[in-house]
Amino acid sequence: MSSAEGRPPSYGSTRGRPRSEAVEQAILEGVMQLLEDGVPLADVSIERIARSAGVGKAAIYRRWSDKEDLFVDVMWAAEPAEPELPGTSMRDDLVVLLESMRQRSLVSVLSAILHNAHAQMRSSPKLWAAYHSGVITPRRDLGLKVLRRGRTNGELRTDVDLELAVEMFVGPLLTRAFIRHDPDLPDGLAEQIVDTVLHGLRPVSSASA
Amino acid sequence: MSSAEGRPPSYGSTRGRPRSEAVEQAILEGVMQLLEDGVPLADVSIERIARSAGVGKAAIYRRWSDKEDLFVDVMWAAEPAEPELPGTSMRDDLVVLLESMRQRSLVSVLSAILHNAHAQMRSSPKLWAAYHSGVITPRRDLGLKVLRRGRTNGELRTDVDLELAVEMFVGPLLTRAFIRHDPDLPDGLAEQIVDTVLHGLRPVSSASA
Repeated sequence: MSSAEGRPPSYGSTRGRPRSEAVEQAILEGVMQLLEDGVPLADVSIERIARSAGVGKAAIYRRWSDKEDLFVDVMWAAEPAEPELPGTSMRDDLVVLLESMRQRSLVSVLSAILHNAHAQMRSSPKLWAAYHSGVITPRRDLGLKVLRRGRTNGELRTDVDLELAVEMFVGPLLTRAFIRHDPDLPDGLAEQIVDTVLHGLRPVSSASA
Repeated sequence: MSSAEGRPPSYGSTRGRPRSEAVEQAILEGVMQLLEDGVPLADVSIERIARSAGVGKAAIYRRWSDKEDLFVDVMWAAEPAEPELPGTSMRDDLVVLLESMRQRSLVSVLSAILHNAHAQMRSSPKLWAAYHSGVITPRRDLGLKVLRRGRTNGELRTDVDLELAVEMFVGPLLTRAFIRHDPDLPDGLAEQIVDTVLHGLRPVSSASA
């Protein structure tokens, strides 16, 4: 699979022989194991990956020209597929989107990559660009599509900037997952966020402005 | 000033001689200049700082036992003081808080430190802990105080979790500042976020549930 163009692995691999795919998988899982163990991305060396995966370093270099390309493929392998939206209402679609994000936040590998990708934005532009174009932008576009549909259906106020509206739904979840020392991400959080953002925070007896 | 306990520099320095304070200031500014130039935190070495500040390495080692302690002090030096709240209404206080955050997001030094502190959470626990206890927690507590006051005054609905409410206000701003490729943080954004979060996103003709 080629990561340079940002194609997710779900498009399939044409690298034939099973043994080669098994080695590739072992390498990806070797990186994930190190990240799950809390090794900072910067300390994940080819040598350490080789040991973790139980392969020789040459096996890694044969497949990836540098560490960054490997990390991009690890990211693709760790990312869950885009969620299927029920399409029953804007509120229901938003809950599924947020729930998918909540689940992803609970996956430490993704968390480690995101934390690191962010900071390494300036030094690993390839990783950040791949993450932005391959994960962030598609999810954001999906959110915008849901809100646009909701606006057409009379489920969303028509005078709000859609980009801001997306940030109002994902913002609380991202903030909680990445800023809090010990984030509390329980079941039901997605519904709670969606419904509270929709209804607003003014006292319920206030007249609509 | 001692950074280990997380005291902000506004508490003053008792290191007497002016020449010593000038050297200390030059060192802090030397680090800030490197970060503003886009040098990743991991690449900011004592040697590089010494060159940037125009001092000898010994001058740095005399004052800070390791790089992390120095970065913590750089963070304190770069952080603006807590904003003064007008106290005229919950809405007005929230706007001042968010505007202060928006201003801080525009300061690249703080942005660089925050990006890096985040990722280095696992490898630089001192920096993250100092940032969390010295910046994040006090700001969050201030936000909670404003919301509690608003709830007492009938300006905030009484059935919402206050922690979530804080995240609803700061979330959109943080998301925009850190996730967007080219964040748009114009004047007026603080008011826009506060008012939209307060009123909610349902169409204005909806009856209150």
